[in-house]
Amino acid sequence: MFNYFGCKYDYSIPAVNVCVCVCVYNMCVVFRSTLMLIGKDFRFGGRVRSGVVRPLACLFTGLSNMAKSKFEYVRNFETDDTCLRNCYIVVRLDGRNFHKFAEQHKFTKPNDNRALGLMTRSARSVMEELEDIVIAYGQSDEFSFVFKRTSTWFKRRASKLMTHVTSQFSSSYVFYWKEFFGEQPLLYPPGFDGRVVLYPSNHNLRDYLSWRQADLFWTLVQKGGLTTVQAEDRLKGTLAADKNEILFSEFDINYNTEPALHRKGTTLIWEKRDETVLKRMKLPSGEEKDVAATRSRRRVEAHHCDIIGERFWEDHPNVLEDDNC
Amino acid sequence: MFNYFGCKYDYSIPAVNVCVCVCVYNMCVVFRSTLMLIGKDFRFGGRVRSGVVRPLACLFTGLSNMAKSKFEYVRNFETDDTCLRNCYIVVRLDGRNFHKFAEQHKFTKPNDNRALGLMTRSARSVMEELEDIVIAYGQSDEFSFVFKRTSTWFKRRASKLMTHVTSQFSSSYVFYWKEFFGEQPLLYPPGFDGRVVLYPSNHNLRDYLSWRQADLFWTLVQKGGLTTVQAEDRLKGTLAADKNEILFSEFDINYNTEPALHRKGTTLIWEKRDETVLKRMKLPSGEEKDVAATRSRRRVEAHHCDIIGERFWEDHPNVLEDDNC
Amino acid sequence: MFNYFGCKYDYSIPAVNVCVCVCVYNMCVVFRSTLMLIGKDFRFGGRVRSGVVRPLACLFTGLSNMAKSKFEYVRNFETDDTCLRNCYIVVRLDGRNFHKFAEQHKFTKPNDNRALGLMTRSARSVMEELEDIVIAYGQSDEFSFVFKRTSTWFKRRASKLMTHVTSQFSSSYVFYWKEFFGEQPLLYPPGFDGRVVLYPSNHNLRDYLSWRQADLFWTLVQKGGLTTVQAEDRLKGTLAADKNEILFSEFDINYNTEPALHRKGTTLIWEKRDETVLKRMKLPSGEEKDVAATRSRRRVEAHHCDIIGERFWEDHPNVLEDDNC
Amino acid sequence: MFNYFGCKYDYSIPAVNVCVCVCVYNMCVVFRSTLMLIGKDFRFGGRVRSGVVRPLACLFTGLSNMAKSKFEYVRNFETDDTCLRNCYIVVRLDGRNFHKFAEQHKFTKPNDNRALGLMTRSARSVMEELEDIVIAYGQSDEFSFVFKRTSTWFKRRASKLMTHVTSQFSSSYVFYWKEFFGEQPLLYPPGFDGRVVLYPSNHNLRDYLSWRQADLFWTLVQKGGLTTVQAEDRLKGTLAADKNEILFSEFDINYNTEPALHRKGTTLIWEKRDETVLKRMKLPSGEEKDVAATRSRRRVEAHHCDIIGERFWEDHPNVLEDDNC
Repeated sequence: MFNYFGCKYDYSIPAVNVCVCVCVYNMCVVFRSTLMLIGKDFRFGGRVRSGVVRPLACLFTGLSNMAKSKFEYVRNFETDDTCLRNCYIVVRLDGRNFHKFAEQHKFTKPNDNRALGLMTRSARSVMEELEDIVIAYGQSDEFSFVFKRTSTWFKRRASKLMTHVTSQFSSSYVFYWKEFFGEQPLLYPPGFDGRVVLYPSNHNLRDYLSWRQADLFWTLVQKGGLTTVQAEDRLKGTLAADKNEILFSEFDINYNTEPALHRKGTTLIWEKRDETVLKRMKLPSGEEKDVAATRSRRRVEAHHCDIIGERFWEDHPNVLEDDNC
Repeated sequence: MFNYFGCKYDYSIPAVNVCVCVCVYNMCVVFRSTLMLIGKDFRFGGRVRSGVVRPLACLFTGLSNMAKSKFEYVRNFETDDTCLRNCYIVVRLDGRNFHKFAEQHKFTKPNDNRALGLMTRSARSVMEELEDIVIAYGQSDEFSFVFKRTSTWFKRRASKLMTHVTSQFSSSYVFYWKEFFGEQPLLYPPGFDGRVVLYPSNHNLRDYLSWRQADLFWTLVQKGGLTTVQAEDRLKGTLAADKNEILFSEFDINYNTEPALHRKGTTLIWEKRDETVLKRMKLPSGEEKDVAATRSRRRVEAHHCDIIGERFWEDHPNVLEDDNC
Repeated sequence: MFNYFGCKYDYSIPAVNVCVCVCVYNMCVVFRSTLMLIGKDFRFGGRVRSGVVRPLACLFTGLSNMAKSKFEYVRNFETDDTCLRNCYIVVRLDGRNFHKFAEQHKFTKPNDNRALGLMTRSARSVMEELEDIVIAYGQSDEFSFVFKRTSTWFKRRASKLMTHVTSQFSSSYVFYWKEFFGEQPLLYPPGFDGRVVLYPSNHNLRDYLSWRQADLFWTLVQKGGLTTVQAEDRLKGTLAADKNEILFSEFDINYNTEPALHRKGTTLIWEKRDETVLKRMKLPSGEEKDVAATRSRRRVEAHHCDIIGERFWEDHPNVLEDDNC
Repeated sequence: MFNYFGCKYDYSIPAVNVCVCVCVYNMCVVFRSTLMLIGKDFRFGGRVRSGVVRPLACLFTGLSNMAKSKFEYVRNFETDDTCLRNCYIVVRLDGRNFHKFAEQHKFTKPNDNRALGLMTRSARSVMEELEDIVIAYGQSDEFSFVFKRTSTWFKRRASKLMTHVTSQFSSSYVFYWKEFFGEQPLLYPPGFDGRVVLYPSNHNLRDYLSWRQADLFWTLVQKGGLTTVQAEDRLKGTLAADKNEILFSEFDINYNTEPALHRKGTTLIWEKRDETVLKRMKLPSGEEKDVAATRSRRRVEAHHCDIIGERFWEDHPNVLEDDNC
């Protein structure tokens, strides 16, 4: 254990100096220069020794437990969780017990637009706060954030990436609650859990996003199905096959009349938009005048469209980096 | 890639059935029984075929992209991050850019009691929400949570443990802000990052907690030192060694007059407290009466004391489990 | 849970024996209630009790420590080290203390063809024994093995992959020693260490292989340089810049006259080669005749060429899989 | 990609210098002093420039592909696999396809003493070659090696630890084959695979070793059972219960008459043994004489005893370190 101290004098110097030694390893950071001085002179001679060292000894004896460096070895128990380079880093969040949370806060079924809006607002806050997120996709009580494959944000440390995303999302959820739910109070602080997944190729990443969007579709099918069950009376006496088909036809209609937000979820990407701003300019004549200037600004934009097919990716070719890098 | 589908018919059945097949793997979960039926009969005969299959075909052709199982292979990119058994799991949170956050919210220096109170309130919310946290220690803008070594919470998955703690803490921080800062508004959602560290022995865990408490001490020394620098004029002309000693003597006084909360931080543990409650009892006479009953309740209690020495651990022998397990 | 026991009699033996079997394995978990019952009654009635149960009891009492299932929980301390999907898995081996090993076995400098041949023979043995290695590259006392990105060999478990490669290589090195060193004895069993590295793209993998081949080049430069230093006398009096240039010109010549094996190392890939074999055929006449037949056989071929440029990869387009998978 | 070079001049300096720059980053290691010189003078003036730079340019242009530093970024794809501190590190090896290997090399059943001897000889070679292995346990075709919990061998890197153990074991197995199998040839190089498991407490480690020894017991039970099945004729007509009991009784006898090596496996630990050596001493008289001297030497000793109970650990109290460290 002794080597944790990095102090080689401990046993070799006489009693009166022990406290100084204690002080040595305690304070290597704080009083380095002083220590150098002491180390060089090694003078505690004359008045100084008798007059001052004593109170110091008291202080330091009491403080020997405070030797930070004595405990600092525990840092070495931390493990390195750097994400493999050149892979997309996906952080996905899921609401904890959101079924119950939705009930307690009277979310409308099957989709509550306020709740979806708050999810998206929180996700936007994450994207604006953290660097290198190129796309985010959310549906229901989950949101996925994709860091670009060459990102070096947080040195690619998985724990830092996922906890910062989760933290920013969670505090934003409470912070912006009022914007979406107005006077309806938030009853307790909600919880989310997160995970990190790596995807080595554009193909894999797109399949991941497709998987989440297809999941939304099937959740809707299930929900649609469950509702239609109540229409069973009407279907009585028909063959199972017919029944199923009718169910689907009906669902088809329902599905197609659902708003895109419910059918497709929310995709957030960075886009450049031209903005016209008025700038007050001083003319050569000395006169001042407002001049319209076009400025290109990068901001997070929301889409509610299919991200499984090619179209979205053709329209936004810069979201993903090239595979061959 | 084809084995991701788990669908063996894809190439072997004629075009008109392909959509049925697509439907097959799409819906194996949802409509399994129906599919069996279809699979057995393979009848789309008569009226049914002409009247119904067409719209279905349209629906399903359009949906082939929705085949969830086609994408589900991406799940296998998740890695297992189970924490080694029989080790204490420590999750430590740190405020992100809290120096700036403190300035913007006008925290008093060097310690803002409202801010410390809010940290502790949020930590309490974490302990009450998550199982198996046996002790938590906080100081400044950080908090450490210790899960018992035999915990199986979240199957000991590191990512789940750290994100859930971070999330609950972050949403609580915003949720309880008003309790501590009253009408002073929270300007933006704050961020925390977290990490997981494992400690195999009680000795290591105690050294970890000691390290954090010693860190608080040295932060105070530094802060004390910086203030005393302003007293330099008085010290002018003395030798460097003397100067340093005087500085420490002064600090000593200051340190001892600081409140325990600032010197020792906050330690949260579960404790059983006896509570006296009044219960309405029915007497044999038929009469009702309030009877005082003592009930033992387990709740999170805060301490502001030394946790480096033996005393605290002797007083609370049940916080840590035995090493030899 | 039952398979932990490894007990095949459990269901096949009548009730009274089940408890015996239970007792054998200490199966308190599964048949706890039964055991309780037995424990209470302690009846194995009639003749059976007096005649047989006693010796059994002795045996089993003595064996209670042997309860495998009591210890089997230790399995859960193993961690999952599955390699990320869709990445090339590279296992690189390096000789341990091969500088000393080379001296003790009188390897010629700077390259010993017998030693290089033995390395390649051992690498070939690894490729032929393990599935899914698509290319291997070796120079000096190191060899790298590349598993195809879609490999599921050993379920992609890193520890299994690297230890099996290292083991097969090491035992082959001793096994084939005589083929290359003849009567010169191997003085002691040599050691190699290994590691696993993942590469997500073809570009990264090729850069890895280029790195190893460039490393060989620079080792040669260094060695060439050191030798040329002995020619310093001839260079005396010239300017430093000139000297360096002459040195390089000379080296250039030397480098170009070095055999490809020394300059480029050894690249092993699977190739199809046509072989002409004689097959004994029965003619319609009933007569038998040897007929020459061409057969395509897949075997490991060695190349000593540049693998940094495009040429090698254009010539062998099937070694790497497509990036977009 | 450009930042991999760490060379900021590449584009900014005129053509003739580019090659120098290429040379700069290529050779920073090898020719650093030369570069310094060039850096200082920055003279390529006069005769030197026209006469010598040209061939250099040619050389370096051709070598630009060899720029090691251009590829060196691939190193960053290696991951850190440091084992958690203060845990026992267990490396277990298992023979690959040893059932077949045993058959092909005509191992006697159920235990071949030559094969067990060779396993132990190889394990001894591992222990003598690698530092910090405090105990090893082997049975059948497996061997477990335990590194002390405070070991810093190979910086506790799991991959290095397991591959070095596996390599040393495998090469030793072939190297020492002849010592145990004499003229019977080894038909092909055998393979082993390995894994690393961490155990945080003495209790866990002992349970691990107990698990392996209990496993040996149950293998013997199974083998005993299978053999006894051939004795079924004798048992015919008896009740199932009796049969089973007889089987066990018989096994009991067989088990007890088995040699300890087969029943208990092999445990290797370091022990100090006193050795009497003769030292030639020069007497004061000038005469020389052989004097007996006792010397304590540390060597690997094999035990074939129970390691599940307390006895072995009481007899060898220094094998395990204290839990509370």
